[in-house]
Amino acid sequence: MSLPAQAAMNAGEVQSFLEQVFEQAMHIKVEETAPGFSRCRLPFDTKHLRPGGTISGPSMFQLADCGLYAMVLGTLGPVALAVTTNLNINFLRKPGPRDMIAESRALKFGSRLVIGEVSLYSDGDPDLVAHATGTYSIPPR
Amino acid sequence: MSLPAQAAMNAGEVQSFLEQVFEQAMHIKVEETAPGFSRCRLPFDTKHLRPGGTISGPSMFQLADCGLYAMVLGTLGPVALAVTTNLNINFLRKPGPRDMIAESRALKFGSRLVIGEVSLYSDGDPDLVAHATGTYSIPPR
Amino acid sequence: MSLPAQAAMNAGEVQSFLEQVFEQAMHIKVEETAPGFSRCRLPFDTKHLRPGGTISGPSMFQLADCGLYAMVLGTLGPVALAVTTNLNINFLRKPGPRDMIAESRALKFGSRLVIGEVSLYSDGDPDLVAHATGTYSIPPR
Amino acid sequence: MSLPAQAAMNAGEVQSFLEQVFEQAMHIKVEETAPGFSRCRLPFDTKHLRPGGTISGPSMFQLADCGLYAMVLGTLGPVALAVTTNLNINFLRKPGPRDMIAESRALKFGSRLVIGEVSLYSDGDPDLVAHATGTYSIPPR
Repeated sequence: MSLPAQAAMNAGEVQSFLEQVFEQAMHIKVEETAPGFSRCRLPFDTKHLRPGGTISGPSMFQLADCGLYAMVLGTLGPVALAVTTNLNINFLRKPGPRDMIAESRALKFGSRLVIGEVSLYSDGDPDLVAHATGTYSIPPR
Repeated sequence: MSLPAQAAMNAGEVQSFLEQVFEQAMHIKVEETAPGFSRCRLPFDTKHLRPGGTISGPSMFQLADCGLYAMVLGTLGPVALAVTTNLNINFLRKPGPRDMIAESRALKFGSRLVIGEVSLYSDGDPDLVAHATGTYSIPPR
Repeated sequence: MSLPAQAAMNAGEVQSFLEQVFEQAMHIKVEETAPGFSRCRLPFDTKHLRPGGTISGPSMFQLADCGLYAMVLGTLGPVALAVTTNLNINFLRKPGPRDMIAESRALKFGSRLVIGEVSLYSDGDPDLVAHATGTYSIPPR
Repeated sequence: MSLPAQAAMNAGEVQSFLEQVFEQAMHIKVEETAPGFSRCRLPFDTKHLRPGGTISGPSMFQLADCGLYAMVLGTLGPVALAVTTNLNINFLRKPGPRDMIAESRALKFGSRLVIGEVSLYSDGDPDLVAHATGTYSIPPR
């Protein structure tokens, strides 16, 4: 299996799907999808803060995990039961009190496993704030 | 540097410290600290749910990260500026709709880096739900 | 899928299988297998050394990877095409100029994915030298 | 601390340094260094093979680890005691029976920790074969 020529769902469709399957309010916005790619935004909100006024590690983890899931959904269409099996995250710099952007790219798009990487930035700043790699298991269809 | 003979802060002191430095409500309870060890509890709450009724990955990440931090604090005393530099988490089974328990242990306790592992369980069930390893950077003192 | 009651191959059978499928000389010895467990030994040899007289990181990686594979083989029987998809290793202490021991345990034994952890020791010393977690993908049978 | 404007050692100097500090034959060739960057080559050799005729995981790990070390050396100059504390590697595709190339880039270049990523390719093929992220601890100077 390899990447399709076109995304199966656009950003708005992925956003609606995520809001439907997660009962809780989703604060993350899906801005773009393409085969093997997504860009998501975590709007700035004081409840993501940790000591020192920066965005917390768990909020960055959530954004990275959601970005990979949006990349899988955008590429394959609605696969509610795809699950993260592994996520490895490196925290590089303290992010500022601004929106965070996650760009997710497939490193491998197999029929059973998708492996991707996520680069996290503060909006408007080119320096990488965190970097993650993760594995998604795709259920048999 | 190696482990001290006694914990520098007990569970209640670590809990108070966490509540002070994080302005947001902390839902995680610190139940026990010992040199190189902590046990924390995430009380069950529907807002940690993900599709299928299980606790979400980001909630488990937060519990693992907090467990490692509580282990560092319990061992060293108040080190507000210790930061997670890396966390790798494997999701193993769907947790049930119950409290989750995180047991964190130091694998290495150096003067500049602490590396630890965290085992996450559903309360009352011996099967591991998730497993994480992480690195904390300790600022010069 | 869960762990069988008995190992499918004993240590000698796993050792022979590894020597057959890898054309190169295998220096690692499989000492014990059980369902979801293996213990392997890397005999001390100056060619594993790195600056400072300690065993090199790549030699420890090889021992960890081989230990996980021996655990999968011992549990399932001959599955030549099982492949490592991810391995995360933390180096904790400099090992001494002695044999190294790897104890591998399954954290999850699924029909498609096996996730395990490996603890690496210097022979005769209880302090952990390195710790790894890894994912094996099991081909459909 | 951030990246210097120029590499402290060029590819040939890094190669000589590696050959001096590692007593064993080093088969890996350092092809290029720049601040926060290195490109290394593992010449094809049947002893790196694993079942199915592809290059073994441990050989790829060694190339990734060496690539990160060459990136650190090229940037900082001779720092023999820099040590890998963590390396996480994802194996994506079976590499063919050809030279492998590792391109290593700093994600963060701090005074105490360097975090980098490595992309591994088969020579002449643009598809990523493996991807690693790792942490190097830099001793106080």
